[in-house]
Amino acid sequence: MERTIDSQLEDLKNLTVEMGGQVEKALQTVLNGVSRRDLQQFASVHTIEQSINDLQIKIDNACLEVLAKQGPVARDLRFILSIIKINTDLERMGDQCVNIAYIGKDVLNRSNNISFQDIEVMASTVKTMVKAALDSFVKMSSTMAKDVLVMDDEIDRLKNKVVSDAISRMKIQPEQVENLLDLILIARNLERLGDHSTNIAEDVIFALTGKDIRHQA
Amino acid sequence: MERTIDSQLEDLKNLTVEMGGQVEKALQTVLNGVSRRDLQQFASVHTIEQSINDLQIKIDNACLEVLAKQGPVARDLRFILSIIKINTDLERMGDQCVNIAYIGKDVLNRSNNISFQDIEVMASTVKTMVKAALDSFVKMSSTMAKDVLVMDDEIDRLKNKVVSDAISRMKIQPEQVENLLDLILIARNLERLGDHSTNIAEDVIFALTGKDIRHQA
Repeated sequence: MERTIDSQLEDLKNLTVEMGGQVEKALQTVLNGVSRRDLQQFASVHTIEQSINDLQIKIDNACLEVLAKQGPVARDLRFILSIIKINTDLERMGDQCVNIAYIGKDVLNRSNNISFQDIEVMASTVKTMVKAALDSFVKMSSTMAKDVLVMDDEIDRLKNKVVSDAISRMKIQPEQVENLLDLILIARNLERLGDHSTNIAEDVIFALTGKDIRHQA
Repeated sequence: MERTIDSQLEDLKNLTVEMGGQVEKALQTVLNGVSRRDLQQFASVHTIEQSINDLQIKIDNACLEVLAKQGPVARDLRFILSIIKINTDLERMGDQCVNIAYIGKDVLNRSNNISFQDIEVMASTVKTMVKAALDSFVKMSSTMAKDVLVMDDEIDRLKNKVVSDAISRMKIQPEQVENLLDLILIARNLERLGDHSTNIAEDVIFALTGKDIRHQA
């Protein structure tokens, strides 16, 4: 018996929610690595990344199949295109988490006691933003998606603080240059996790309304 | 009269080639800014970015229309999905060029004479890689696309050189910390332009063969 498009779209959504859950898990794992100074946490993110990568290919294949077999139009078609894009963003978010793990490992391997305090504040906001973006997809709520878009400013502010503090300290503690550069790079990876969350929220709004709000001031 | 799918696919391809041309122009413009130490070049990239952003929305709309009206399958469908992804990559490449322009402007505004030599070497390789990726799309050649994939290692090597040299110099020239950090950030933006070129090559291979070669070692 031919499956209905509704049940196929539901499957696509569930796979995407599963992938979002894996991204949240990857982020939490690397943030645990930071807050607990735990190399084991950084190492364990690679297994999660593998499942994210597997899901990326699985979701793209599933989208291709629904497009080919059902020839969807209007809102169903927009929903599938949104999933294709969200899928790309989620995979790159997995990459960001892996980047943070590599950098965090370098920092810990220098056996130092540099403070991650500002990074942890920033990470907490990024985690909230990632969750809000995924929730807006789960609920398919454009109100929730719009709330995500305004969160980016706070993340930029927190990143700028990490960067300017690190630059000031580099000048007076040249022996800490590598560690301070790594704090900057972690902050930039966190910032990009925020950017991808913005993309997801924009895709949710497009799927629901057909309005493309990218590149608006 | 209803237009054929072939002519619509040809239009999609032409729009994507046009967008790729704008990305190459944006990259060349910011690299001119670097090599000539010319703020005007950095400023003029924003107009090019605007046309890239406009094309992104135009291409996505055109893909949606072909999908809705023609219900393509097999190779035609893969071609459209590849364009949707390449479109996303090209837009982000425009963002990378803008990032380089902002950083380059900061460096020049510090009225210094820091050397961009290693950046220029790296930029030249990135430019070749971007061109090769776009050419593989124009010719729809999986042989050319495969050649792109191996170029990434050289870019990583050049980026690592910029980063390690900058770190060494930060320790002995703390007054140059901002400029040296900016060299590192430019190198990382160039590296990401290479990553996007890899994505485009992988999408070309998928469109042609149906093989998803992402995440293979």
